[in-house]
Amino acid sequence: MDELKTRILSEGKVLPGNIIKVGSFLNHRVDTKLMARMAEEFGKHFDIKKVNLVLTIEASGIALATMCAYTWGVPLLFAKKAKSDNIENGLICSEIYSYTYKKNVTVMVESDYLKPENHVLIIDDFLANGEAIRGLTDLVREAGATLEGIGIGIEKGFQGGGDKFRKAGIDIYSLAVIESTENGIIKFRD
Amino acid sequence: MDELKTRILSEGKVLPGNIIKVGSFLNHRVDTKLMARMAEEFGKHFDIKKVNLVLTIEASGIALATMCAYTWGVPLLFAKKAKSDNIENGLICSEIYSYTYKKNVTVMVESDYLKPENHVLIIDDFLANGEAIRGLTDLVREAGATLEGIGIGIEKGFQGGGDKFRKAGIDIYSLAVIESTENGIIKFRD
Repeated sequence: MDELKTRILSEGKVLPGNIIKVGSFLNHRVDTKLMARMAEEFGKHFDIKKVNLVLTIEASGIALATMCAYTWGVPLLFAKKAKSDNIENGLICSEIYSYTYKKNVTVMVESDYLKPENHVLIIDDFLANGEAIRGLTDLVREAGATLEGIGIGIEKGFQGGGDKFRKAGIDIYSLAVIESTENGIIKFRD
Repeated sequence: MDELKTRILSEGKVLPGNIIKVGSFLNHRVDTKLMARMAEEFGKHFDIKKVNLVLTIEASGIALATMCAYTWGVPLLFAKKAKSDNIENGLICSEIYSYTYKKNVTVMVESDYLKPENHVLIIDDFLANGEAIRGLTDLVREAGATLEGIGIGIEKGFQGGGDKFRKAGIDIYSLAVIESTENGIIKFRD
């Protein structure tokens, strides 16, 4: 998506550890009109008529996923990362490794909200090693729901997470795939 | 807001500890069209023309705040709750007590995104004791920005957080104020 790539090049920063900072428009301050256009772009790739649930994970994926769910007229469900007081029984869980927090994290949804009749499009702002998304696909499978695909804002192609899903035959579509950040210069995959 | 109150009465559950569970439409699974109508409702109370930034806190406030920012055509900024790798220097911080996690939590935004020229409407899905919102008002004040008001989805009136802000002369507007949950029956403030 050219508009997204232009924003990444003009506002993105490469930090030590290959961290790509796009907090000015994607995952801290958010340009919600851009999110709506990203939702439209996903709609060109996926057959949205089949989708009846958008699934994401807290926290930074929620803004993009909200605009997707709104644009497509389906509910949004965001997975939570740790047990809090207002989640009762009936959870579907998966364990992932968080590279941000350097520890295992449980991702979960209430089983009432993810059912066998759901056709799920997973949406997230970022994909690197793919652990968070792997956790979400686990939830979909455990619920007996159907995974229609995975839509990603920015994929760090050089970390291999996206290609693992492609090899597994999952329909994953990233609006911008960053192939390298050598010397702080962002290069996209063609 | 009648539609919201009806949803609370038909789908909400009162859990032990006066926790009001509305995860079917507000803060786990999200009805984004309802969020858009809640944004419209805030627009009847606040002078949105003055507002140039919506501020919320991760995670459950993000969906509602996204629809507000989108509806009003202004950027969204969500405060983060703990230092992660992709936040560099230049932070504005406030310490709050989280009753959910029973510990102090630092809330923060990057100073690049909250400036003296910002006219801020704080939006959150829930207000109970008001600690999270107090933290956000601290950030606005420390940034030298102007607080235009606070818009809340559901206020637990019996916990007093909202009334503290009202007494301090802050324009706080909650779409549903729950006055009591005795015997599991939800009663609204008139």
